[in-house]
Amino acid sequence: MSTKHEFGAMEDIRMKFGAKVKDLRISKGYSQEKLAELSDLDRTYIPGIESGKRNVSLVVIEKIAKAFKIRISELLNDL
Amino acid sequence: MSTKHEFGAMEDIRMKFGAKVKDLRISKGYSQEKLAELSDLDRTYIPGIESGKRNVSLVVIEKIAKAFKIRISELLNDL
Repeated sequence: MSTKHEFGAMEDIRMKFGAKVKDLRISKGYSQEKLAELSDLDRTYIPGIESGKRNVSLVVIEKIAKAFKIRISELLNDL
Repeated sequence: MSTKHEFGAMEDIRMKFGAKVKDLRISKGYSQEKLAELSDLDRTYIPGIESGKRNVSLVVIEKIAKAFKIRISELLNDL
């Protein structure tokens, strides 16, 4: 579409988000299991997020932000 | 889980996001069809987002932010 703006590959956002989650998790000293527990997500879900394979939903983003006790906009502030 | 923090119903985030999208769309003077075109989403998808029924993915959030020419964190800044 001529009116559409392309700023790079769509899959990049997943990788950027995964890297941010991993950075925050490590800065808090949490294991992937601990983050899963705090965010009420399945333990097997976290590696897929951190590696950028998962296209997480808004509800999952909210759960992760709550686990880190930060706002959603803060979790996504450099994406 | 005893360590989990509950700040209200999870479905609220979808309704807040939908209301934000609708507000932005109207402030830009876009129809739902126009927003669908700009965000490269199916036209039938937008009503479900705005009514809070859709649990949108990170990739869709990015598409909508691009359609409005704002950052993802700005799109989500009051959620």
